[in-house]
Amino acid sequence: MTHAPHVVAVLGRGVLHPDEPVVTADDLGLTRGDGCFDSTRILTEEGGTPHVVDLEGHLDRLERSARAMDIACPPQQAWRRLVADALAVWSTPGEAVLKLVLTRGREWRPTGPTAYVSITHRADTGITGHQRPRTITAVTLTRGHPSDAFRDAPWLLGGVKTLSYVVNVAAQREARRRGADDVIFTTTDGYALDGPTSGLLVARDGWLLSTPTGDTGILESVTVGDIFESARADGWLTRFVLVPVADLYTSDGLWLVSSGRGPVLVTALDGRPLAVDEELASRVHGYAGF
Amino acid sequence: MTHAPHVVAVLGRGVLHPDEPVVTADDLGLTRGDGCFDSTRILTEEGGTPHVVDLEGHLDRLERSARAMDIACPPQQAWRRLVADALAVWSTPGEAVLKLVLTRGREWRPTGPTAYVSITHRADTGITGHQRPRTITAVTLTRGHPSDAFRDAPWLLGGVKTLSYVVNVAAQREARRRGADDVIFTTTDGYALDGPTSGLLVARDGWLLSTPTGDTGILESVTVGDIFESARADGWLTRFVLVPVADLYTSDGLWLVSSGRGPVLVTALDGRPLAVDEELASRVHGYAGF
Repeated sequence: MTHAPHVVAVLGRGVLHPDEPVVTADDLGLTRGDGCFDSTRILTEEGGTPHVVDLEGHLDRLERSARAMDIACPPQQAWRRLVADALAVWSTPGEAVLKLVLTRGREWRPTGPTAYVSITHRADTGITGHQRPRTITAVTLTRGHPSDAFRDAPWLLGGVKTLSYVVNVAAQREARRRGADDVIFTTTDGYALDGPTSGLLVARDGWLLSTPTGDTGILESVTVGDIFESARADGWLTRFVLVPVADLYTSDGLWLVSSGRGPVLVTALDGRPLAVDEELASRVHGYAGF
Repeated sequence: MTHAPHVVAVLGRGVLHPDEPVVTADDLGLTRGDGCFDSTRILTEEGGTPHVVDLEGHLDRLERSARAMDIACPPQQAWRRLVADALAVWSTPGEAVLKLVLTRGREWRPTGPTAYVSITHRADTGITGHQRPRTITAVTLTRGHPSDAFRDAPWLLGGVKTLSYVVNVAAQREARRRGADDVIFTTTDGYALDGPTSGLLVARDGWLLSTPTGDTGILESVTVGDIFESARADGWLTRFVLVPVADLYTSDGLWLVSSGRGPVLVTALDGRPLAVDEELASRVHGYAGF
């Protein structure tokens, strides 16, 4: 087995060297950001077999994204075989990110959708994730739309994990420019949305809260769903509800949550220190299965 | 010389077969839509040399897009050489589209930005463009944000021709679903913006109007600028001003305008027939140099 830091496998072509190009100049995923993706964690113990966390859930979400975009998603069995091909040459111990990418395919030839998977080692984490940074600072940045912008407007592709992510990465650059690590997007009517690559979790007065999907256009967070389920079993009240931006500063705990790094505690927002409850943070980490 | 319907040339690699892949699995242009592009027309007479329309203006706009995104744009001379390489194998008579594409480059290796050009024949046009469809029908669709959404929010990348175009193509699919050809985007506060791949031009009471750039986030239209300049010389008053959606239905003439197809007259909007003034349409066509 090789110990490659990156693996790429393309549907119909198999495993490629990571330096080998995978899409043509006219692929609509490249020229229009016209495609979707999903990603999850791979855990590999020293000398062990890699384990993909909740592949099922992420394949389901990828299928929903593709359906919303009218892209014919390859069957789950084809994705599973492609993932297995990639895993067969993966044995780097620690955590890695599995990415599933689907584009509408080529503009000049009717070749059908382009599908590939990639595996990338997370150099910042150890086998058990203890090196993972568990706290960050964030800034609020407007997303430029009201909280109901996506109502009855399916062409805006709310809730769809598309490849058109440029505003998300530009917002993260703006955060670094302001000396912070990440972003919480806000609406023009004063509510919190989510992060550029993460969901929002707020602890407040015995409740765990997160932003509703639907009219807000935010992505469903698989990990927020997992946290809510475990938290309710542990006695918490949970609710998807719009949280006013002003309430973020006075919350009992604030997290950005993703499949890749789990719940990450926000310790300062727009330069203002937030409540940091280590015991609460540890429980929320456990709810997420991290 | 070959008579290929498509030509691709990649900076650092030269002319490639159009079926040959150009970007890797980790290219941020592909995985995040993190890049920019520009496009213009190529005119080639039978047996003649191809002529690129206003390469200068489009290279300038590409540079502005790259600057707004913090991507190091290759010097114009490099782009010109790349375009020349592509043109050297292009001789298909008629109209073609030249596309200039720039991405932030690879995530896994510091290889710098990816830059390529492509040429695509416009099969729907003849040498002088007379086969070009000069009228279309359109629908209005909300863009989900107010008309000042981009004020003081550079991370939203207003005015930047990024590769994250998925909402634009989804809106065009929605138009076809409604039996129309194209889209005029609208704001939540009731103004017209532009089309998914075109600028807006409105004739009204002796004025030619178009949507202002800046706070609206719309792209500057090189062709609207050309039209305004020629129209003023011909006695028109011109103005960049927000046009209420309601005024579109009662305009003296309504066009969607792009470098690829020039000004295209909209004959019906949301199923309601619009004023069609053939003489006016012909003059506007002339102003655009089409």
